[in-house]
Amino acid sequence: MKVLITGFSPFDGETINPALEAVKLLPNSIAGAEIITAELPVVFRQEAQVLIELVEEHNPDIVICVGQAGGRPAISVERVAINLQDARIPDNEGNTPVDEPIKADGKEAYFSSLPTRAMVQALREQGIPAALSYSAGTYVCNDVMYHLLYWIDKHGWDIQGGFIHVPYCPAQAANIPSSPPSMSITVIAGALEVAIGAAVKDR
Amino acid sequence: MKVLITGFSPFDGETINPALEAVKLLPNSIAGAEIITAELPVVFRQEAQVLIELVEEHNPDIVICVGQAGGRPAISVERVAINLQDARIPDNEGNTPVDEPIKADGKEAYFSSLPTRAMVQALREQGIPAALSYSAGTYVCNDVMYHLLYWIDKHGWDIQGGFIHVPYCPAQAANIPSSPPSMSITVIAGALEVAIGAAVKDR
Amino acid sequence: MKVLITGFSPFDGETINPALEAVKLLPNSIAGAEIITAELPVVFRQEAQVLIELVEEHNPDIVICVGQAGGRPAISVERVAINLQDARIPDNEGNTPVDEPIKADGKEAYFSSLPTRAMVQALREQGIPAALSYSAGTYVCNDVMYHLLYWIDKHGWDIQGGFIHVPYCPAQAANIPSSPPSMSITVIAGALEVAIGAAVKDR
Amino acid sequence: MKVLITGFSPFDGETINPALEAVKLLPNSIAGAEIITAELPVVFRQEAQVLIELVEEHNPDIVICVGQAGGRPAISVERVAINLQDARIPDNEGNTPVDEPIKADGKEAYFSSLPTRAMVQALREQGIPAALSYSAGTYVCNDVMYHLLYWIDKHGWDIQGGFIHVPYCPAQAANIPSSPPSMSITVIAGALEVAIGAAVKDR
Repeated sequence: MKVLITGFSPFDGETINPALEAVKLLPNSIAGAEIITAELPVVFRQEAQVLIELVEEHNPDIVICVGQAGGRPAISVERVAINLQDARIPDNEGNTPVDEPIKADGKEAYFSSLPTRAMVQALREQGIPAALSYSAGTYVCNDVMYHLLYWIDKHGWDIQGGFIHVPYCPAQAANIPSSPPSMSITVIAGALEVAIGAAVKDR
Repeated sequence: MKVLITGFSPFDGETINPALEAVKLLPNSIAGAEIITAELPVVFRQEAQVLIELVEEHNPDIVICVGQAGGRPAISVERVAINLQDARIPDNEGNTPVDEPIKADGKEAYFSSLPTRAMVQALREQGIPAALSYSAGTYVCNDVMYHLLYWIDKHGWDIQGGFIHVPYCPAQAANIPSSPPSMSITVIAGALEVAIGAAVKDR
Repeated sequence: MKVLITGFSPFDGETINPALEAVKLLPNSIAGAEIITAELPVVFRQEAQVLIELVEEHNPDIVICVGQAGGRPAISVERVAINLQDARIPDNEGNTPVDEPIKADGKEAYFSSLPTRAMVQALREQGIPAALSYSAGTYVCNDVMYHLLYWIDKHGWDIQGGFIHVPYCPAQAANIPSSPPSMSITVIAGALEVAIGAAVKDR
Repeated sequence: MKVLITGFSPFDGETINPALEAVKLLPNSIAGAEIITAELPVVFRQEAQVLIELVEEHNPDIVICVGQAGGRPAISVERVAINLQDARIPDNEGNTPVDEPIKADGKEAYFSSLPTRAMVQALREQGIPAALSYSAGTYVCNDVMYHLLYWIDKHGWDIQGGFIHVPYCPAQAANIPSSPPSMSITVIAGALEVAIGAAVKDR
């Protein structure tokens, strides 16, 4: 079995993205499955193009994209992606779509096909703060999750796909006066390993 | 130079106290100073008795007590302890004082004699979320900080003393439905090392 | 023009629902449109049955359902309802569905057909804290919003429909130890009036 | 019996201070006591000079100063003022003291002489979110509370004095992207009336 797991590049003026750093720490194999890691650009549509090429190249059984949700205190396993692009801040190429659909022929939303509830339960049992989330936002994170699930649906691919949001890491939070919650990259990497394990076991 | 650093026992039904676990991880020497670690009971007045015996035994130059402040997102370097005991939850022997003074002949409050601002700055520079705090609460944490500073004042001891509050660790937060912020014990231990280093350097 | 606006009954052991109390305070006419108010039960599917009967009876041009989202600090204008029932707490008849679809033949999600962005902008301009929201949860609030938009879609009704979440009122927050944010029922009622006005103007 | 109650001017670029607006709404008499209201400037030391002149002019039995604590969700009845000035933002004359004592001959701290616990209980019983607070900060609010209690102590005045912090009002919160909690000026004014009533009854 193959798992493709991606992390986004830094964005919004940050020099680090804890999602990417945690993905880089993953081992080559989890629960018997081969782990393929990759970096995605924080650019609307372009991040999806990079992802689809990775999917076509590696032919994975499970695809999990990971991104930063600054301000959230726990690992968020996303349940649904919506057909909407809306950017409060520019992406890394300056795009700021406002209330645009992602795919004209797409559904209003797609549900994650990962075992999201089992993943959250496994995380908590391992002592990692985690929660189901019903909004991946309207930025590039939702965009890549939507694209992934749209293709799986359109092409009838036998892939389980979804998205995980992670908190700021301590080094980011240390620079923000409002003192947002944070989670160390080591803990995040451990969380991804547990979440992947739950997804592999369920597959 | 000698630094005495203490962590509290678990309380309020918890089986772990991240303050204590982090203290246990400290090395024997930081910035050239000898590090002496100890556990304090979460019992009003009794924790202070244990602390004073440790001070008399070890004759430290710096004393830092560390406790858990569940819900806070960052390392809190406390600046002031007040002459008030008030317990929202029972301590580990069932005491629940309501609005009682700690010391009849004590001052209304004592300021920490640690270089609190330098400690917070050093923490942030090392990428650890940290903030000055102006309330150590009215529970056993404030109680031990108050006692410590009261003795230093009464006895004229040449000791720099103060208190640091730390967040929940992830394993605690994973069990709390409201998803409070957390900080891993490794990060907390690193924070204590940086904070002690700043205090030693200032001394 | 006719606007049907509903508020939910109290639930989860509360004796008051600020959504309902605010709806009761609305005038008979806003921006030239007739205002019809009603109470909905906090019971999965049953609340939708009551709503559809009201729609068939009154034939409104705009339908806005209003519910309480305890813990949120601002008026939340919901943008999307998802095809999922999941209850963390029982509804008023003890139902606790877990991860059940609302409608087997329904879409994954429906977007609000109200002018949500204009409503939020109008609220802020009137000095009322407000925000777009991309999750109405998975409880009875999402359930009624989903049913409403499902019917509009299925029947081709010429109705603009959507949902607004409101904070706790002060009397509720005063009884909750964690001190959640609140908004007075008068302010909430004023908010609903502004929001309805923006929807009527857009129609 | 006479109660002097003050509200601060707007500061930090705001055009309104909910503390002042609520104070202005108070009736001339509460629980049989005469109510004298006044505005204080948000300027270190100067605000205290204005207050002492008001005290000498009116000879009140109770003095309550009221200020804004943006971000707090509830009425905060302050219990203690500390001998420290530290400004994160300039006051209205550009002063930004860093870690300066307020009074060289003052105590480290003074406890409020108001019946703080009874005031909080009365507020909650009236359905108003309220909490005891153990830090009035280090800005002009703490400064005026400290000065007031310092004089009462130094002069042996028979005055009960203290401080109440209030949340943002909705119009302020509506302009802040992070959506902080708010409380309407009417609710705040009602809260001050209840709090004054509890203080008068206790006196």
